[in-house]
Amino acid sequence: MIQQLVAGIDIGGTNTVFGLVDFSGNIVFKETVPTEHFPNPKDLVEEVGEHIKRSFLRFDGKYQLAGVGIGAPNGNYFKGTIEFAPNLKWKGVIPLAQLFSELLNCKTILTNDANAAAIGEMTFGGAKGMQNFIFITLGTGLGSGIVVNGKMVYGHDGFAGEIGHVIMFADGRQCGCGRKGCLETYCSATGIKRTYSDLLMSHHRHRRMDRMVDNAKFIYDKAMQGDKDAIEAFNCTGDILGLALANSVAYTSPEAIFLFGGLAQAGDFIFKPTIESFEKNLLTIYKNKIKILPSQLTENNAAILGASSLLWNEIAVK
Amino acid sequence: MIQQLVAGIDIGGTNTVFGLVDFSGNIVFKETVPTEHFPNPKDLVEEVGEHIKRSFLRFDGKYQLAGVGIGAPNGNYFKGTIEFAPNLKWKGVIPLAQLFSELLNCKTILTNDANAAAIGEMTFGGAKGMQNFIFITLGTGLGSGIVVNGKMVYGHDGFAGEIGHVIMFADGRQCGCGRKGCLETYCSATGIKRTYSDLLMSHHRHRRMDRMVDNAKFIYDKAMQGDKDAIEAFNCTGDILGLALANSVAYTSPEAIFLFGGLAQAGDFIFKPTIESFEKNLLTIYKNKIKILPSQLTENNAAILGASSLLWNEIAVK
Repeated sequence: MIQQLVAGIDIGGTNTVFGLVDFSGNIVFKETVPTEHFPNPKDLVEEVGEHIKRSFLRFDGKYQLAGVGIGAPNGNYFKGTIEFAPNLKWKGVIPLAQLFSELLNCKTILTNDANAAAIGEMTFGGAKGMQNFIFITLGTGLGSGIVVNGKMVYGHDGFAGEIGHVIMFADGRQCGCGRKGCLETYCSATGIKRTYSDLLMSHHRHRRMDRMVDNAKFIYDKAMQGDKDAIEAFNCTGDILGLALANSVAYTSPEAIFLFGGLAQAGDFIFKPTIESFEKNLLTIYKNKIKILPSQLTENNAAILGASSLLWNEIAVK
Repeated sequence: MIQQLVAGIDIGGTNTVFGLVDFSGNIVFKETVPTEHFPNPKDLVEEVGEHIKRSFLRFDGKYQLAGVGIGAPNGNYFKGTIEFAPNLKWKGVIPLAQLFSELLNCKTILTNDANAAAIGEMTFGGAKGMQNFIFITLGTGLGSGIVVNGKMVYGHDGFAGEIGHVIMFADGRQCGCGRKGCLETYCSATGIKRTYSDLLMSHHRHRRMDRMVDNAKFIYDKAMQGDKDAIEAFNCTGDILGLALANSVAYTSPEAIFLFGGLAQAGDFIFKPTIESFEKNLLTIYKNKIKILPSQLTENNAAILGASSLLWNEIAVK
């Protein structure tokens, strides 16, 4: 019997990662190309498409392509487009789903990367069987995917689930979106770096943030060594994240909230203050019944699994 | 042909209003009993049930009862219960749907009053045909119902949609829920009274809030007379409400947001500052495409229509 595979494609600012995934979430082929090498999105589509076609030739008829799932920044599920993504060099509206669908002659679904990862968690990860959950990616920014009644919330326009841009503090930190005080300016790799820097400046006025603090992993390593400012940076981040998640519960009352991404790998340093603040700030009817859990997807494979699950999820529902 | 009617019952702290509603939203019978006269909820159920039975006798076989819909404070859709409602004298968990279902021998659906009103808006009001919208009641508190993909969001536990208890300001105003800074302490009849009182105290230190300000209508009348403090109270309320609604959009990206209740009847005094703040605080991708609208349900009939629509909506979906 010929087995079906789905192509999962994750478009990132630096790299485009893609692979072929079977129904159980096994990745049978995986490849990376640098997104920046393709100023014209059509060229990227052809390059990726060629790789996928060549794989199937090598499989010698054992597999067939059931469809393509794409996770992309500013991806619009309804239109299959990437729209004005600040982290990509492609400007305007890119009909990426259509381009892949025409080239590979199969069903193609596109959504933003955080939504794709959320569906990945539901299809292959810790949210299997859950009808209501929230998925948070703590990367350079804060992405989110909200699942209600077993379905991704896309909203009226396909752009639902931007919890990273909930304004936490009027006149707070400047956000890349042009507004101030957005959650992701505090709770993300970028956010905790700013917090750590602020703490260093206020506690040790003579010290300036050194150039080594170019990633959040540095702050984790410092915290592991007992550095008080690093531990406090995690506590401040968890305080704000816990409040934001408690507020989020008042919207969709989920069974669980999953944290994914570099910052979520800091274990207790981030989970402990987040859960403390979460429970403290929850309305009584919600207390002690909503789990805050680490994502069960591995950092390396989440993007491909998430993108492929866009298709697997719809096939499974039918 | 025998026509079907649904009983819509709204349990309030003071009164229980109920009626019989046809498929088009016509109320063919309506009655009110004082909730407080029934310390035992079973007695209220019997009283209301008797009224409903007697009506059908009078109809002389022209109608039959298709079901009962109930809107109630702290109503739980999944369990059909009222749970620990602070505004009712009934303590603990009341299985109200079961009591009505047994007495009247028909399907009974119960949810909280704001959810019921939201489904009323979708079935009989301005949200007809909308798949994604948010419904806000500005009464003593701030209630909300969220519709996603054409369905009410109940969440994992049946308690979703408590936007009134989103914490807007850490260490803000004391809320009846025991926490501080909840949206409803600012944006509700109670909230605007506190704001107006604060403004009077700060602008005219010699004046104390007089006892006449026992309802928000008084502030509306003052604003109509050009009273600057009253107008500023509306502006402050709209500022915060607009921000809260802009944040809400980041969750479910609705087509429209409906405002219902006494405060929503203040027209431009509340809508203008709310919409200004809303658009100012929206993420760019959402700007200029989400409508903030007054509810199309009349204040008098909304509760009964909303409660009855719980049944009509499920019947219509099938």
